[in-house]
Amino acid sequence: MDSITSLQNPKVKAYNQLVSSAKERREQGLFVLEGLRLVLDVVRSGRTIKELYFTKVLYINNTDDIEKLISLSDESYEISDSVAEKMSDTKSPQGIFAVVARNDCDNEIDGAGKYVLLENVQDPANLGAISRTAEALGITGLIVSGGCDVYSPKALRASMGALLRIPVIETDDVRMTIEDAQKRGMKTYASTPREDAESITDVDFSDGVIVVVGNEANGVTQSTMDGCKNSITIEMTGRAESLNAGAAASIIMWEMVKPINDKS
Amino acid sequence: MDSITSLQNPKVKAYNQLVSSAKERREQGLFVLEGLRLVLDVVRSGRTIKELYFTKVLYINNTDDIEKLISLSDESYEISDSVAEKMSDTKSPQGIFAVVARNDCDNEIDGAGKYVLLENVQDPANLGAISRTAEALGITGLIVSGGCDVYSPKALRASMGALLRIPVIETDDVRMTIEDAQKRGMKTYASTPREDAESITDVDFSDGVIVVVGNEANGVTQSTMDGCKNSITIEMTGRAESLNAGAAASIIMWEMVKPINDKS
Repeated sequence: MDSITSLQNPKVKAYNQLVSSAKERREQGLFVLEGLRLVLDVVRSGRTIKELYFTKVLYINNTDDIEKLISLSDESYEISDSVAEKMSDTKSPQGIFAVVARNDCDNEIDGAGKYVLLENVQDPANLGAISRTAEALGITGLIVSGGCDVYSPKALRASMGALLRIPVIETDDVRMTIEDAQKRGMKTYASTPREDAESITDVDFSDGVIVVVGNEANGVTQSTMDGCKNSITIEMTGRAESLNAGAAASIIMWEMVKPINDKS
Repeated sequence: MDSITSLQNPKVKAYNQLVSSAKERREQGLFVLEGLRLVLDVVRSGRTIKELYFTKVLYINNTDDIEKLISLSDESYEISDSVAEKMSDTKSPQGIFAVVARNDCDNEIDGAGKYVLLENVQDPANLGAISRTAEALGITGLIVSGGCDVYSPKALRASMGALLRIPVIETDDVRMTIEDAQKRGMKTYASTPREDAESITDVDFSDGVIVVVGNEANGVTQSTMDGCKNSITIEMTGRAESLNAGAAASIIMWEMVKPINDKS
């Protein structure tokens, strides 16, 4: 196995470009991961590790795991501590990094599934938290359009790997995605703070359904609102502007999938 | 008005001790705030500003607000930019700081209210986020025992001021708080991931109620579980360990206060 000790190594530079640039990740069809748990998760998700990087200390402390990862990776490199520091996106690097192939085309919308469509959600912490809650509650998958890159290192970390475990479908054309879903018999709802929208407690979420959650500041776009035909809201008696995107999405997803024994 | 330009000024040192030490804040009956919005919020909450600190630039850009704050503060100081940097808990200080008197004894539990009791919740970001959602949904108040200090600068910031606007009751003895509430006719529930607990969709949350949310890693303590008599859970079909404390609290609070038109 090769080892890398120079901060100027072209592989290190290429890795750091993938960390910082969503455009680079998209064009190359790759993304990066840092941390042992995430790297083990990505292998379980069926994706291919193109390049694996780890420090000697990390290898010694996790030999069985790393040997398994080496056998599943196209290329493997031992790196020095200073290279690990240079590659890391965190203050205290664990010392393991991977370059992974995206397989964006694998997921299709299941007409009988329950999806949340995130439109222009900007904050990687929100995207990550929403994906964790979606996985916990058993939401079928996420549909993501615009906003924060699904493969941003911050979003992957905040998701604790959930973004790698649940189906995530990316779309450039929300309107078309929604209209296709409607043609297949799915119901589509835009969520909004507007009080004239239907209360989520009155909505029948059985069968296939997509609920759109919008941008943190501006909500769902007018075009998507029009395309959905139905708009729904979380009825609140408090100071509604305090409800942030993550909390709103948690409540909406719960209403989508909760046991329906209390519906009349 | 006095001005402070020395990083060695005793007032600056005392302020920084209040930033970093929960013990110091408790013993002195004080807490600190940074940022114009939070300082304006605290004045609206009826608390007294003991000391106000601001930079010249901040004064020039917000003269009306600052003049009002000066008139409501016991002491006011203009500080240099380097002092502001030293006092700040953030990377980009706005240049306004306040030392505020706690008034911990003001709030009492309303027997007809709906409360969430946070037992040993550690993460100030969770405490802040839960208080925001509580305010949005119209939860009567929070009861806090152990864990992260309610007056930690991180929690106050994450709460966007909600911790200053909603009633927060601190208790050292959860068991006694719960038993007192029961004597006054309130219902008390411990939340748990255990599947043999009652589903939150089956619980009647009308009238006065307290729901306990436990520590992020260990949940509600056994003593509190026993004291509550009832335990409730969020029924999930997904990977339940992914549900974090903030998302769980959002869903529980929603079930506590949502419009009850769908209950049979």
